Amino acid sequence: MDAPLLSTIQSPADLKRLAIDQLPQLAGEIRHVICEQVGKTGGHLAPNLGVVELTIALHYVFDFAHDRLLFDVGHQCYPHKLLTGRLGLLPKLRTRDGMAGFPDPDESPYDLFAVGHAGTAISTAVGMARGDALNGEHDRKAVALVGDASIVNGVALEGLNNAGTLDRQFLVVLNDNGMSISEPQGAMAAYFDRVRVSPTYGDLKKRAHKVLENIPGGSILEEIYHRGGEMLKHALATDHLFEHFGLVCVGPIDGHDLPTLIDMLNEIKDINRPVLLHAKTIKGKGFEPAEGDATAFHSPKPFTVDGCRVEVAKGGRSFTSAFADAMLKLMAEDEKIYAVTAAMGPGTGVDKLIEKYPDRARDTGICESHAMDMCAGLARTGHKPFFAVYSTFSQRALDQTFQEVSLQGLPVRVCMDRAGLVGGDGAVHHGFMDISMFRTLPGAVLLAACDEPTLKAGLRFMKDYDAGATFLRYPRDNVAKQPLQIEAECPPFVLGKANLVIAPSAKPDLVILACGTSVYAAAQAIGPLTDQDHDIALYDARFAKPVDIELLRKVIGAGIPVLTIEEHALVGGFGSAVLEACNEAKLPTRHITRLGLPMKWIKQASRSAQLAEVGLDAEGIARAIRSVLSDHPSPQPDPAVARTQ
Amino acid sequence: MDAPLLSTIQSPADLKRLAIDQLPQLAGEIRHVICEQVGKTGGHLAPNLGVVELTIALHYVFDFAHDRLLFDVGHQCYPHKLLTGRLGLLPKLRTRDGMAGFPDPDESPYDLFAVGHAGTAISTAVGMARGDALNGEHDRKAVALVGDASIVNGVALEGLNNAGTLDRQFLVVLNDNGMSISEPQGAMAAYFDRVRVSPTYGDLKKRAHKVLENIPGGSILEEIYHRGGEMLKHALATDHLFEHFGLVCVGPIDGHDLPTLIDMLNEIKDINRPVLLHAKTIKGKGFEPAEGDATAFHSPKPFTVDGCRVEVAKGGRSFTSAFADAMLKLMAEDEKIYAVTAAMGPGTGVDKLIEKYPDRARDTGICESHAMDMCAGLARTGHKPFFAVYSTFSQRALDQTFQEVSLQGLPVRVCMDRAGLVGGDGAVHHGFMDISMFRTLPGAVLLAACDEPTLKAGLRFMKDYDAGATFLRYPRDNVAKQPLQIEAECPPFVLGKANLVIAPSAKPDLVILACGTSVYAAAQAIGPLTDQDHDIALYDARFAKPVDIELLRKVIGAGIPVLTIEEHALVGGFGSAVLEACNEAKLPTRHITRLGLPMKWIKQASRSAQLAEVGLDAEGIARAIRSVLSDHPSPQPDPAVARTQ
Repeated sequence: MDAPLLSTIQSPADLKRLAIDQLPQLAGEIRHVICEQVGKTGGHLAPNLGVVELTIALHYVFDFAHDRLLFDVGHQCYPHKLLTGRLGLLPKLRTRDGMAGFPDPDESPYDLFAVGHAGTAISTAVGMARGDALNGEHDRKAVALVGDASIVNGVALEGLNNAGTLDRQFLVVLNDNGMSISEPQGAMAAYFDRVRVSPTYGDLKKRAHKVLENIPGGSILEEIYHRGGEMLKHALATDHLFEHFGLVCVGPIDGHDLPTLIDMLNEIKDINRPVLLHAKTIKGKGFEPAEGDATAFHSPKPFTVDGCRVEVAKGGRSFTSAFADAMLKLMAEDEKIYAVTAAMGPGTGVDKLIEKYPDRARDTGICESHAMDMCAGLARTGHKPFFAVYSTFSQRALDQTFQEVSLQGLPVRVCMDRAGLVGGDGAVHHGFMDISMFRTLPGAVLLAACDEPTLKAGLRFMKDYDAGATFLRYPRDNVAKQPLQIEAECPPFVLGKANLVIAPSAKPDLVILACGTSVYAAAQAIGPLTDQDHDIALYDARFAKPVDIELLRKVIGAGIPVLTIEEHALVGGFGSAVLEACNEAKLPTRHITRLGLPMKWIKQASRSAQLAEVGLDAEGIARAIRSVLSDHPSPQPDPAVARTQ
Repeated sequence: MDAPLLSTIQSPADLKRLAIDQLPQLAGEIRHVICEQVGKTGGHLAPNLGVVELTIALHYVFDFAHDRLLFDVGHQCYPHKLLTGRLGLLPKLRTRDGMAGFPDPDESPYDLFAVGHAGTAISTAVGMARGDALNGEHDRKAVALVGDASIVNGVALEGLNNAGTLDRQFLVVLNDNGMSISEPQGAMAAYFDRVRVSPTYGDLKKRAHKVLENIPGGSILEEIYHRGGEMLKHALATDHLFEHFGLVCVGPIDGHDLPTLIDMLNEIKDINRPVLLHAKTIKGKGFEPAEGDATAFHSPKPFTVDGCRVEVAKGGRSFTSAFADAMLKLMAEDEKIYAVTAAMGPGTGVDKLIEKYPDRARDTGICESHAMDMCAGLARTGHKPFFAVYSTFSQRALDQTFQEVSLQGLPVRVCMDRAGLVGGDGAVHHGFMDISMFRTLPGAVLLAACDEPTLKAGLRFMKDYDAGATFLRYPRDNVAKQPLQIEAECPPFVLGKANLVIAPSAKPDLVILACGTSVYAAAQAIGPLTDQDHDIALYDARFAKPVDIELLRKVIGAGIPVLTIEEHALVGGFGSAVLEACNEAKLPTRHITRLGLPMKWIKQASRSAQLAEVGLDAEGIARAIRSVLSDHPSPQPDPAVARTQ
């Protein structure tokens, strides 16, 4: 690897020894190693290329061994990691013993919070700023680095409003790469568009300046103006949105101009007021294909560069693609369907729906709470909203799902992509609690798809179900090439009915109820065991709520052991729903064994490695089956259950 | 009741028949009947008195049989209800067959959403506006009525930002009663304070006006100016915060001046752009004691007015008061404790903590997500944050609890007041899912207090527990006058250990594990049954996570039936945790019976009536006990469990 300057940097102290005119070379090296690595393994690319100079400048001016640097979302942390001694971890990017794709305090004390969800940095930084001040550590400066796409999120705006009340140093760096700029993603984006001007040092010097009166404690601004350096004087913004939130606003400035950034940060770092520095950057900066299509290169799969041609590795057919195609079909059939996402257009496939039906599909930006409420309003006017959201982000709309959707009995359809383990993104993105959250809502119906035919059938069920909210989960994975089912066609979903996919040859000595793609792993596990004369039935549970109590009554009544499998926390999940239903129906549960995610955080690794780690791959399931079979050598009808039947 | 005009109004159509100069009398009558009723029964007072004229004007100008009126929070809906045919329901305010304290579509088609949580109206209105437009019903106007305290909430700000993208009529009425105006509640409040000027018609006419260029599609504003009426011309705001969100901003105007309001609404109702009308009102308007202390009269208990003296009924000692006193003691002992609330100062008792420790206690305004994140930041700097929040509002911070708290392993203490049934506030405010939500988080410890001694002991446990997040629930109720326990002093909480409070005389024929105040109802139920020669042991579970598996092993091993009781949804709750733990430990569960909240929405009524309705009062519990005892006449050790021991 050709990175002579970067390889000398073990910590930011080494960075500070470089002269400012060496920094552009360093920036180039950082870009180079990131491009090379992401090309090999995939990972977040364009966001990291966009913040190289910002990150260098921040570490050059502040001392984050002592000061506080909070990343928002966090997928733009690679340059930060490379400057804080983690170049050696880069070759194993996003794997267990390599560099995590998001900040991780277990990896380095320079990472204060493990994050991956947007909008949180300002609020946690406010807490740390207050905490440090209470500790008498007034010299610890606080910096939050936030993107323009994140800042429209509710908690970010709440955080800004509360940051405005701080009476100490507090810096929000707004990394405005213009990626939220498109009409559907909110009016604030249009605002940013208008103020993205005058980026160069020279321009700043020329810019006329007038101190505003209406900043809280307005005279402070005047004081800052008079005491501030030349750079600051010319960059004080006098009509910035966030002034109204109580912040002194500076910029926009060019986020790739290192000398300007360093001068500016030096001038504002000692202001004892909350300050927002608006920096204009280019997402994907320095890598032409990424500059040209920052969305495609936001988090690409491995790619190769051959002259001018860039080839991104092809994956198989994902659940996301299958979802988009199924929705296109349903939307053609039923004009009442309206598709919504919250800045997960490519990730959920809703971008294809927006392209085809611009009037009936919408991206709200990173506003999950708003998106859920908008869906409630749409349903109230007779439409059929489908909200496509990552399982982990659906957590941000729980309260809206409770009040604006479920309490009203509105048929909002929530389609949860990336339910279960997500691979390289790690602990911040696993979808492990959607079942437990939404199952508690009266009237909620929870479905899981295990392959493309069930995904289609599930969506069709949801389209037609209007008695309340429905929730469908499916993983960040490819759909099976060969669908697994007894019947030639996937039978339609029937409320609360499981579907037999592998029937035993005779009377089963085990019944497996699997929820979601665990059906496939279970089928793999069953194969060799069946050869060993075990008779195992496999059901696709299809519904986590309501569960198929008739099936359970039959199976448990016959004394046949039951194994539930799910890619969800064991706490409150599908297996727990089975226990509850059996308890309610006075069925014994001692022959029920539950397999699911353990109560621990699963770090970055490939999805298959993670599944193996938690025992949800075919091998782990086979182990569980053998254990159950050895505990229950010969099923006996339960006399007590027989009595109650 | 002396309300000659009001009693003629069966629907807004009747209102429209009145002349404008009759409306002030109508306003007076509305205030009179509300004051009289709330004095008798308690209820929301000051918020309703503040919006009388606004509500009259809105119904006078719009036709909400067709147009869409969305209330934010909703506790300001009484005037609206009185104008839409519900005067007859008022005498039974907040009871089952009377008027609900919040909007309720089951009560009237004029109520579009049942709401009680803040910040949602703009987003649901955006959804309805888009839905109506898609339906081709372009004449259906959308109006959201939002208070200044609510508009700082994340989902409201997300909603505003998205509303700014609408290209149709959309009106946000900002009811600015200045109640969020205090430094701790955010910088935006200070902004509102600065722009709360020039409220009279006369002032408006005098006001100089300059059309701003920087509104999106700036020329539209100019067009509105030139085509608008006189009133609008003079009230167009040219430097309003929400202009940057893409809204045409008008005002502030006097929200109690009916002719001005009506003229203004008439002028702006046809603007095909999102508009924000900033109206200045006085919370508690027209009732002197409420104007003087809007916080005390926000939602008072019954009160009597005797000349100038107002006497509010005294309640007993609430869990809230007990919490505040316990916290004052702990904060005196441990200077690292920091108390946080999100606009629930009086409701959680944190107001007393702020008064005593202004530097170590804070109200963030209605920003639950931010508050949780700030706590995470505080914990990261070595402080001991206690976030006091209503159980139902903790739902708004689930994702922050997941990522910024639990994933980091930070010891944030969440104190959930109003867990369980809340009485008159009804379905929008019950705390029925905190256990199921937070139990799914790795490392979370969940506690419940059943009286003042356990509340104190639980808080002390939390203070000292720093291995992860802790969650304590307690109800909207008074603490028991006579604590119920075997030992003279309440023994300290020990992680995962239940506490025996009523021991059987010999070997029990039933063991009750109750979580929270159900312990007291169970004790009441046990009394008479013990006299009938039943031997029943009662444990205060204390922990919903981890559950006391050693106790369960002993009891179930002895074949003794177990009854779990909780004021929480049966789905995913404490009883479900007991089932999971037993299943995990290979203990049979057929002798476990779970009592808890059913999967349905419980409407407004007294808390005791609601408890009776769901069978969680002493009588309901006694019924459940008798049923369990008749199913299990004589406990027999379970041979299978005996084998495994």
